[in-house]
Amino acid sequence: MNRKIRMGMVGGGPGSFIGGAHRRAANLDGKIELVAGCFSRDPAKGAITGAELFLDPERVYTDYKTMFEKEAQREDKIDLVSIVTPNAAHFEVAMAALDAGFDVICDKPMTTSLEQAKALADKVHSTGRLFALTHNYTAYPMVRQAKQMIADGVLGDIRKIVVEYPQGWLADAVTDDNKQGKWRTDPALAGISCCMGDIGSHAENLAEFITGLEITELCADLTSFVPGRTLDDDGSVLLKFNNGARGILFASQIAVGEENALRIRIYGTKNALEWAQEDPETLTMRSNTGARQVMRRNWAGAGAAWSRLPAGHPEGFFEAFGNLYTDIANAIAARADGVEYTTSYPTVDDGVRGVAFIENVVKSSKTASKWIKFEV
Amino acid sequence: MNRKIRMGMVGGGPGSFIGGAHRRAANLDGKIELVAGCFSRDPAKGAITGAELFLDPERVYTDYKTMFEKEAQREDKIDLVSIVTPNAAHFEVAMAALDAGFDVICDKPMTTSLEQAKALADKVHSTGRLFALTHNYTAYPMVRQAKQMIADGVLGDIRKIVVEYPQGWLADAVTDDNKQGKWRTDPALAGISCCMGDIGSHAENLAEFITGLEITELCADLTSFVPGRTLDDDGSVLLKFNNGARGILFASQIAVGEENALRIRIYGTKNALEWAQEDPETLTMRSNTGARQVMRRNWAGAGAAWSRLPAGHPEGFFEAFGNLYTDIANAIAARADGVEYTTSYPTVDDGVRGVAFIENVVKSSKTASKWIKFEV
Amino acid sequence: MNRKIRMGMVGGGPGSFIGGAHRRAANLDGKIELVAGCFSRDPAKGAITGAELFLDPERVYTDYKTMFEKEAQREDKIDLVSIVTPNAAHFEVAMAALDAGFDVICDKPMTTSLEQAKALADKVHSTGRLFALTHNYTAYPMVRQAKQMIADGVLGDIRKIVVEYPQGWLADAVTDDNKQGKWRTDPALAGISCCMGDIGSHAENLAEFITGLEITELCADLTSFVPGRTLDDDGSVLLKFNNGARGILFASQIAVGEENALRIRIYGTKNALEWAQEDPETLTMRSNTGARQVMRRNWAGAGAAWSRLPAGHPEGFFEAFGNLYTDIANAIAARADGVEYTTSYPTVDDGVRGVAFIENVVKSSKTASKWIKFEV
Amino acid sequence: MNRKIRMGMVGGGPGSFIGGAHRRAANLDGKIELVAGCFSRDPAKGAITGAELFLDPERVYTDYKTMFEKEAQREDKIDLVSIVTPNAAHFEVAMAALDAGFDVICDKPMTTSLEQAKALADKVHSTGRLFALTHNYTAYPMVRQAKQMIADGVLGDIRKIVVEYPQGWLADAVTDDNKQGKWRTDPALAGISCCMGDIGSHAENLAEFITGLEITELCADLTSFVPGRTLDDDGSVLLKFNNGARGILFASQIAVGEENALRIRIYGTKNALEWAQEDPETLTMRSNTGARQVMRRNWAGAGAAWSRLPAGHPEGFFEAFGNLYTDIANAIAARADGVEYTTSYPTVDDGVRGVAFIENVVKSSKTASKWIKFEV
Repeated sequence: MNRKIRMGMVGGGPGSFIGGAHRRAANLDGKIELVAGCFSRDPAKGAITGAELFLDPERVYTDYKTMFEKEAQREDKIDLVSIVTPNAAHFEVAMAALDAGFDVICDKPMTTSLEQAKALADKVHSTGRLFALTHNYTAYPMVRQAKQMIADGVLGDIRKIVVEYPQGWLADAVTDDNKQGKWRTDPALAGISCCMGDIGSHAENLAEFITGLEITELCADLTSFVPGRTLDDDGSVLLKFNNGARGILFASQIAVGEENALRIRIYGTKNALEWAQEDPETLTMRSNTGARQVMRRNWAGAGAAWSRLPAGHPEGFFEAFGNLYTDIANAIAARADGVEYTTSYPTVDDGVRGVAFIENVVKSSKTASKWIKFEV
Repeated sequence: MNRKIRMGMVGGGPGSFIGGAHRRAANLDGKIELVAGCFSRDPAKGAITGAELFLDPERVYTDYKTMFEKEAQREDKIDLVSIVTPNAAHFEVAMAALDAGFDVICDKPMTTSLEQAKALADKVHSTGRLFALTHNYTAYPMVRQAKQMIADGVLGDIRKIVVEYPQGWLADAVTDDNKQGKWRTDPALAGISCCMGDIGSHAENLAEFITGLEITELCADLTSFVPGRTLDDDGSVLLKFNNGARGILFASQIAVGEENALRIRIYGTKNALEWAQEDPETLTMRSNTGARQVMRRNWAGAGAAWSRLPAGHPEGFFEAFGNLYTDIANAIAARADGVEYTTSYPTVDDGVRGVAFIENVVKSSKTASKWIKFEV
Repeated sequence: MNRKIRMGMVGGGPGSFIGGAHRRAANLDGKIELVAGCFSRDPAKGAITGAELFLDPERVYTDYKTMFEKEAQREDKIDLVSIVTPNAAHFEVAMAALDAGFDVICDKPMTTSLEQAKALADKVHSTGRLFALTHNYTAYPMVRQAKQMIADGVLGDIRKIVVEYPQGWLADAVTDDNKQGKWRTDPALAGISCCMGDIGSHAENLAEFITGLEITELCADLTSFVPGRTLDDDGSVLLKFNNGARGILFASQIAVGEENALRIRIYGTKNALEWAQEDPETLTMRSNTGARQVMRRNWAGAGAAWSRLPAGHPEGFFEAFGNLYTDIANAIAARADGVEYTTSYPTVDDGVRGVAFIENVVKSSKTASKWIKFEV
Repeated sequence: MNRKIRMGMVGGGPGSFIGGAHRRAANLDGKIELVAGCFSRDPAKGAITGAELFLDPERVYTDYKTMFEKEAQREDKIDLVSIVTPNAAHFEVAMAALDAGFDVICDKPMTTSLEQAKALADKVHSTGRLFALTHNYTAYPMVRQAKQMIADGVLGDIRKIVVEYPQGWLADAVTDDNKQGKWRTDPALAGISCCMGDIGSHAENLAEFITGLEITELCADLTSFVPGRTLDDDGSVLLKFNNGARGILFASQIAVGEENALRIRIYGTKNALEWAQEDPETLTMRSNTGARQVMRRNWAGAGAAWSRLPAGHPEGFFEAFGNLYTDIANAIAARADGVEYTTSYPTVDDGVRGVAFIENVVKSSKTASKWIKFEV
């Protein structure tokens, strides 16, 4: 395919964090060009973003349905729709994009109900379109390295998984100018959970992605610490996995001083692995019988397949995110060229499990019977 | 008191780890001299240890009752009994020592049942003897610094406590030459729990010590991963505290590659603190509004009251442990001199809570109703 | 300026590391589009790169002079020339680009002789074109934060600067397939120095950039450790600065196991700063009177002006490099729009000092008189 | 030898830092008892220290000559003299102790002139007494591990050594109550150097100890930054070693915010090692061909021979220092018992090289010819 993949974006207008992140991720490798967008329902806001991105004003739309309709008629129409709206809109936009014949890359959590999630999965499977879910943390090279090592049996049988995701930015009541905080704490836009939906689902996805295991049972305690907040801003979950492993998942948005501290530790019978998102270039392996091994991205081959730079030249969030965009762009091009290609991005089925996780955690959290009194 | 405090030890013969640790802790500040011991019921083994320690063979005993009886009759009799036996013997030795009029410093967990723990507390209170429990991790200078900062309100209201204690040394079946592992995994010597009794109780104690809060409810999942083992070697516990704070306590002895990784994080409304035993000279404070503060022992006054060396001259395990020994030695001397003195060591009442914690966790772990199925 | 800046590249064909790095840096913010290139003198190789980048084959050239001539005649001609050849070609390409009326962004070291460097500076000043030198490490947000803090007097008077840049990748003789190593160790392509030219000059530039000081005297020891190598692969330099501060600069390419470990420490009378390229999101401040301050990018405002992502979402090498590209793109657009704009990128004058540094270090290294015998 | 080694101390009265450090180091293993001391020439001060240490007042002396004379006549006389005075007194006290037939353990630098150092070495060799110099940093288990690995050829040929020792505590003029700072900056008590004598000599010793190499040439730049100070408070030294390796030694006492940051990096043809005193339990090995190896004390055997505790139970400054005391105590006991014993402590010959280092560095620093002007 001797041209860049053409992309349209839904969401990502002024004040959006994730829209800009997606755009830079898509830019990085020079394989995708953003040519259309429905950045805001407000024409003035949409126009601002369109102009900043040097888009043809004709291809800046104010509703996504129009965008899909008009684009579908163009010769130079978009190939791919990027969905970066608040959670509650993901479902309808994704369904419409698929129906209009576009491939989709969508932010997470995929939908705000399990029912929608399943319907979307059915749609993806029935249309045969490509659908990538941006669980971007799975695309860090050293996360992929960890997954491969576990698949190769390096850890032996996995016994314990500890995954945590503390942030501090919602420790206080959200002010009106905090667009990100506003929608995430609003059930109408975020769904049934704030913290678990926003970041707990990343933790769940990361644990299952790296280990290849599935959660089978859980026991959760969610809390809303900030007065007046109705959705959870902190939660702790005990986990059982399908091989008998046990786990802990901890996510918080009231952990003051924490930035974006997603971290996972996996203990097997032979070796253990640790990875932390704030130091993403490093993967640490421990054992009872030798020195700790600190693997570094693109050093001695670690994570090399997903690297752009030599070791010691830090890659970060955009580069991992960009791996997802480049992956779907490569898949689109390969399909056009009739070439075999295997994608590595998280799928609509991962999205279903993510939404199920949120629902199960919220359900478990409501059971009082799990607690026993501390008796002395 | 113009002489060193005279100490007798029960336990700590050949192959003991903790006996040697207690002895070096007692040596460090030159305030205590070991003059008697019942290191083993086996006279040959006891004699070996006695000779290594340059003790008068007459004061090396083969049963603790004889030791207490004979010592009580000497003019230069011991002041203090140090108890470093496996858990199951703590109770009877401590009761006898107190009855014989000696002050006591005892390893943890204090007893193997809550009933014994309460009886021992009653005995301490009724005899008025000094009783220190060696929750040694509370005696690190930066732990004391953390406790003081929280008492001073630096963190605001505490919302979340995450305390963890992974070790890897029991990841495989214990071999016969591993004396430490043997007794800890044997219910007859260790009591109803291995991992939670041995190290989980340290984690519980540390969380309550630093924060001044008390656990009120819990939900626990204990597992025995190693085939043939009857006691837990791993456990995860959800916690509620008496101010509404939530917590996670995680302890494991099958976390391969982990050394002795006790770590605590405490998130308040204003600031958060983190301390890790393997890097004990550092206490980290985070907030949403400024740079991370890395406090170092004896730098700008942090932990200075419990320090022996300038910052950057590492103090460690023996020095913290020695703080407990010096504390009780100072208390004995002060009492002899009729001087006021306030101790900082963990007390028999802390010991009662520690044993209650173990019992409550084991009880909770047996409830299946806490789990819900992960439904998709 | 309601279009992207159009860029042509010289160098960066198959096997080039830095060409791809420059291209991704230019892509990141969506402000620049690569439309032309002279990637190789070999038409086949150039065509490969051109096709990978989806360029119009007409704008893929095999010599830079033709490129400048042809592009100058187009209506949609390039605005900016990016020079990523081996060192020895920088000078002639840059001179030609400036003469042809293009703005230039050029890799470092700027030239292979001081004479050329000064001639190039004269050309830049006489033509009035924009010229950015990609001392990319100065564009990390926390480096800029450090520079600002020092300018604000936070450190007091600077006394000591320790800057080091160890790498290990040239510890063995270079094999034929190592294109990067080949040209850097070849005097015909690299100039009079390998290690000091390639990375020592980054260290020199970083030290002067952050502190605002200038080196006035130096004493250097350069070594070629690998048998058969004629240029230095390791060097240590004592420094004096124009305020009386002393310094050490250490660069090595035979420091086995080191990735790209550029690091600087600056000690003032009041505070000290430390920054390390492999952990670029962190800037550490130490003082004698308080806790260590760990500043993190975009946390509490640190480095915010140069950030794209919230704290804890790692930015790295491409993002810093991209700051230079976006800076010159902004400058070009501002000039077109008649708007005031102040650039922050390293200039041709920084480039002159960098080349002078290399020459002075090589000269000093040849003096044997600096050594005294260790007499016992 | 069925008793503890009896020790007398010279120096270490009220306000001394190093005296208390030596005493705790000697206490730790229970093999040495302090029975006599000449802590101060002031009888009142000496009595205070003697009482704190529960010494027999008869064995608290006010001049060392009397102490050696009286002790020599006792049946329970001291075996060992510990010298912890300011530098200038080391020589005469050590000479007298050796002449009186005592073994000696002495703080560093050994003397304040090379002439004295050689005379002392002659005395040690002619008397045949034991003489240990407390270059305590060489006694950390992971330093010994590093030395062994290098001796075993793990690093290949050593090419570059970077050893640094920044401290910040003398960044300002010394106040009268700072006894430590007072004598170290006073030529009458400290000798010809402050920083290089006090800590630079530790760095030199560590580099030679670990690598087994010897410095053959050097080029030094010493500075006195604090107004009014006559001795150096900062210095940087280029080094050549006897195998052709190059090195950098950097020591400073005006590096604000630094605690006691002795650190060494050694790059060989095959592997590199790094050790830092503030994190002494860790030894890091790097190579170009695999993951970084983080060795931890007493994990998988690393440093086990010099360990007292399992991995993860931090040992620190006192424990390393105690290794020297226990070593000389073991040597005294072995000699008494007629048993072969090989010591590992630094010797009088190491002390001679240390003093020579100081003299050579001071001499080199005075040569102006090493500098060249930075010409542009």
